Amino acid sequence: MRTSIATVCLSGTLEDRLDAAAAAGFDGVEIFENDLIASSSSPESIRARTRDLGLSIDLYQPFRDAEGAPPDRFAAVERRMRAKLDLMARLGADTVLVCSSVAPDTIGDDALAAAQLRTLADLAAERGMRIAYEALAWGRHVSTWDHSWEIVRRAGHPALGLCLDSFHVLSRGSDFAGIRSVPGEKILFLQLADAPRLAMDVLQWSRHHRLFPLQGGLDLAAFTQAVLDAGYTGPLSLEVFNDVFRQADPHRTAVDARRSLIALASGLNGGADGALTPAPALDGIAFTELGVDPSSAPEMETLLRALGFAHTGQHRSKAVQLWEQGAARILLNAGAPSPAEGSAAIRAFALESTQPEQSARRAEQLLARPLPRRRRQSEADLTAVAAPDGTEVFFVRTSPAGWHDDFLPTGETAAGAGITGIDHLSLAQPFDRYDEAALFYRTVLGMADDEAGEFAAPFGLVRTLAIRDPGRRVRIALSVPVLRRGEWAPAIPHPQHLTLATSDLAVTAAALRAAGVETAPIPGNYYDDLDARLALPLALRGKLHSLGAMYDEDERGQYLQLFTPVVGGRVFIEIVERVNGYRGYGFANDPVRMAAHRAQRLRKEVRD
Amino acid sequence: MRTSIATVCLSGTLEDRLDAAAAAGFDGVEIFENDLIASSSSPESIRARTRDLGLSIDLYQPFRDAEGAPPDRFAAVERRMRAKLDLMARLGADTVLVCSSVAPDTIGDDALAAAQLRTLADLAAERGMRIAYEALAWGRHVSTWDHSWEIVRRAGHPALGLCLDSFHVLSRGSDFAGIRSVPGEKILFLQLADAPRLAMDVLQWSRHHRLFPLQGGLDLAAFTQAVLDAGYTGPLSLEVFNDVFRQADPHRTAVDARRSLIALASGLNGGADGALTPAPALDGIAFTELGVDPSSAPEMETLLRALGFAHTGQHRSKAVQLWEQGAARILLNAGAPSPAEGSAAIRAFALESTQPEQSARRAEQLLARPLPRRRRQSEADLTAVAAPDGTEVFFVRTSPAGWHDDFLPTGETAAGAGITGIDHLSLAQPFDRYDEAALFYRTVLGMADDEAGEFAAPFGLVRTLAIRDPGRRVRIALSVPVLRRGEWAPAIPHPQHLTLATSDLAVTAAALRAAGVETAPIPGNYYDDLDARLALPLALRGKLHSLGAMYDEDERGQYLQLFTPVVGGRVFIEIVERVNGYRGYGFANDPVRMAAHRAQRLRKEVRD
Repeated sequence: MRTSIATVCLSGTLEDRLDAAAAAGFDGVEIFENDLIASSSSPESIRARTRDLGLSIDLYQPFRDAEGAPPDRFAAVERRMRAKLDLMARLGADTVLVCSSVAPDTIGDDALAAAQLRTLADLAAERGMRIAYEALAWGRHVSTWDHSWEIVRRAGHPALGLCLDSFHVLSRGSDFAGIRSVPGEKILFLQLADAPRLAMDVLQWSRHHRLFPLQGGLDLAAFTQAVLDAGYTGPLSLEVFNDVFRQADPHRTAVDARRSLIALASGLNGGADGALTPAPALDGIAFTELGVDPSSAPEMETLLRALGFAHTGQHRSKAVQLWEQGAARILLNAGAPSPAEGSAAIRAFALESTQPEQSARRAEQLLARPLPRRRRQSEADLTAVAAPDGTEVFFVRTSPAGWHDDFLPTGETAAGAGITGIDHLSLAQPFDRYDEAALFYRTVLGMADDEAGEFAAPFGLVRTLAIRDPGRRVRIALSVPVLRRGEWAPAIPHPQHLTLATSDLAVTAAALRAAGVETAPIPGNYYDDLDARLALPLALRGKLHSLGAMYDEDERGQYLQLFTPVVGGRVFIEIVERVNGYRGYGFANDPVRMAAHRAQRLRKEVRD
Repeated sequence: MRTSIATVCLSGTLEDRLDAAAAAGFDGVEIFENDLIASSSSPESIRARTRDLGLSIDLYQPFRDAEGAPPDRFAAVERRMRAKLDLMARLGADTVLVCSSVAPDTIGDDALAAAQLRTLADLAAERGMRIAYEALAWGRHVSTWDHSWEIVRRAGHPALGLCLDSFHVLSRGSDFAGIRSVPGEKILFLQLADAPRLAMDVLQWSRHHRLFPLQGGLDLAAFTQAVLDAGYTGPLSLEVFNDVFRQADPHRTAVDARRSLIALASGLNGGADGALTPAPALDGIAFTELGVDPSSAPEMETLLRALGFAHTGQHRSKAVQLWEQGAARILLNAGAPSPAEGSAAIRAFALESTQPEQSARRAEQLLARPLPRRRRQSEADLTAVAAPDGTEVFFVRTSPAGWHDDFLPTGETAAGAGITGIDHLSLAQPFDRYDEAALFYRTVLGMADDEAGEFAAPFGLVRTLAIRDPGRRVRIALSVPVLRRGEWAPAIPHPQHLTLATSDLAVTAAALRAAGVETAPIPGNYYDDLDARLALPLALRGKLHSLGAMYDEDERGQYLQLFTPVVGGRVFIEIVERVNGYRGYGFANDPVRMAAHRAQRLRKEVRD
């Protein structure tokens, strides 16, 4: 299937946008009128540029307030349409989008609307062009796809057909099964946009919060399939108005956009059109690589030793240490700066894949940026791609001859402090990458959303999204400050963290205490509130209080959390005990934890 | 009237928030439960701190899901209430806010709700405390103030009364005249919040978009007056959930908050309680001071000369030049860095006030930050305050012995190029200061909103608000990028600009051309679209095209705009001709103008 993208999805000058669309592999573009008007390039030069880039111009849009115009205003509509059709001829575009009128003086009369569209279609046909008529969800009189189809049918003009837009149909919760009975040749264009489910004015929702397919909560797959079933043969085209994408690097956004269409297409027509290698099952996190500044390395080593880890291996060629305990493996890299953007501390992680090569193939099909394979003689060949924030994601199968063999054994063995493995990773995301990251983990790794939240932290709102594989072996929590950017709120990203699972938090806490590590000081007010809210068993209450642990529960079980200090301002370790199958992440405790870390830092500054 | 503020209005640790509230002059605070829970200070130490700061704790809040609880859950509610009342005793707070229940299992039975609230009021009364019951706009069964009053009346308990919140009442458009008949002593607390008029889910609207009084679109004055008329004698207290304030400097936010109450109070009870010096009439902008880097000064001087200005004066003691033409006076300061934050280029402006001293007195009453008076012998005594973004605002009365006399005449006279005066100032605002700036200009200067907009610029959304004095002599356009903060969009603030009025744009354009100044290159696509949309008279069309001017019109008249290049990346000058009483600002043209400036810069970089 051909893919197309509206220039309004991207940021920058029109040239920036065209370059980005071509580089991401799109076949065509929709030229959004305002982007052309602001461009210093003539239509002829835009036409030449798109041709050089291998892009077709699939649509010119939008043409507003046409149908239903009071007769005395319609002459101006015709005049405007002639001018725009002439412009399209210069551009080399042959289809114009007419969206249903919103002007207050629009007349609600289907016969009039059909007659006027017929007149406009005559103008288009004279030039060998076509008009695609679309019902805006907030159209004055025409706001549903079936109403727009009724008018197009009534007009009965060969140069007039429908434009269908997933957002306008799905945002209203309209039944779209009937689309299958529309003759395929009368559907001239298909625009796709997803969106989170929000309870707000549909116009604002559409203008600010649209997302690429599979990034939101609308059923794009079912809708698109219905349109294909009708016999539509045009491109799958994206039309997404999003405040973040409007100001983000268009090259990154365009790749994100294409990824969404590749993933969407793989599920259409029974997978016949865009077969994608299935995501192999994941078996857990093989290792996590922490990047710390050389000056913070001793503190992190002390912390790992206090947690019962042993420095079991030293990389054959790099300044990277392997630390192990149970199934938890941490690579400590105090060398080169992190490839991740900003000061991200989790610079890489490796996923245990049942089929690493297949995982890598799927990632490549979904446009994940491959990382150069680095191997020396006697080093394992690791396949890796970059996540949207730059974090390196390796696909491995841990075995004696595998990656583990890259490390020379030191002979140390772990003292042990109850740690059994890696529970999850918490990746603070760059602002521009949040929805892109969610799509990446969902599609490339075949993971699914687990829990989403938003909470008021001491320095502003934070949004979180936890994603997991079907078997709950790999869990990743993404977070982003919703708005933090003034001169007061800390400008640096909030720290990332690694969450370790323990079989007994008391054992781990005792080990930390014995080693002189002070965990983040959870305030007494927190326990007072816990006592007021929940009548916890006395033993549990005592355990929490004495360990300085935080607590959460769900309908299944309990969650006990302990936090190390933040090392080097960039990373801390959380230790959790899951009891009776608790499935959450304790997000509600995050503001208190953040305040505790801040209090701990302020005290340390006073001491120092 | 006493003033109070909820800690949730502010950012930072609880201590940061208390300090900010006290410094801004509030009498008391509402302690928001989550802020206390996250605090490392005990209730006793918070009590001591507020006492030391001279703050009372006027309310503890919120207590959720109390009334209408199924009987088997009510024991837990009582237990929780006892714990919170004990906590309040430690804090020294005597009133707790109970908000109407939202839990799905809440029973909609007024008799049950009244009985349960009576039971809880007994618990409060035992400790000499009170319960203020509030209807949340999204309460499960109780969502209007009159319903909450019906339940309180039914309960008939001396320790139980109402909490009224302007947002919950006004957001629903409820009639509030009936509040006047509620006995004053039964209104235990009054919370004030404004909000912009938005069509969205009321819960999201409330949690993210509340504003301080007079910053939004709700009628706070009428509502507050109704509550006072009922005999309410407690504090005016602010409870504002706002995404920006949550992450902004709490000291600045607290001052902004107090300013809103001072302005609100001055209009209550016929002005008896908080008399404020009236805002004197403004007569125009006496001068605008532009700050440029020394390296950009020659370019700006060339530009001013090209525009027909003369360098008429040199400051007696500072490296500041006076440039004049008609009533337009520009101070050019290539010296000390701008006091404004960021790289704001309009570092000061002076308002012609009919009573400068009175203007300054009002500014002081409204907590504007006074700037040190700088005068030397034989220099005018200028009264100035800082606007929220740091811009210096002077109040002057231009006269022979006034500020003008600080400049030694150079003897130059202006060649003239049609410029008649300063049309308006366009101040790009720091993100954190936008609503604060609007409130500042409205209250301190007695100005009113003129036109608000939001447009998609090439690098992201931009929000604008134009404010003017009643006589349309002073116009200020504020703008802020809604979301610009990723790594792609330009990190620097967009340039500020000064708009000059010309009596004939053709004359000014000819002067610029003669001097070799290239104005921002408006693309041909813009004129094609203009022609498609409007059938302009041939002469006007020709004039626009030949001048490279942009165009707007309203129901009164026409607006012709021309833009100089951006000087030093920070500032440009717009020249406008208003025809037949056009009243707008041409905001819709901004995206094209921004793209043109970018194209001009890129061309210059290629040339250089």
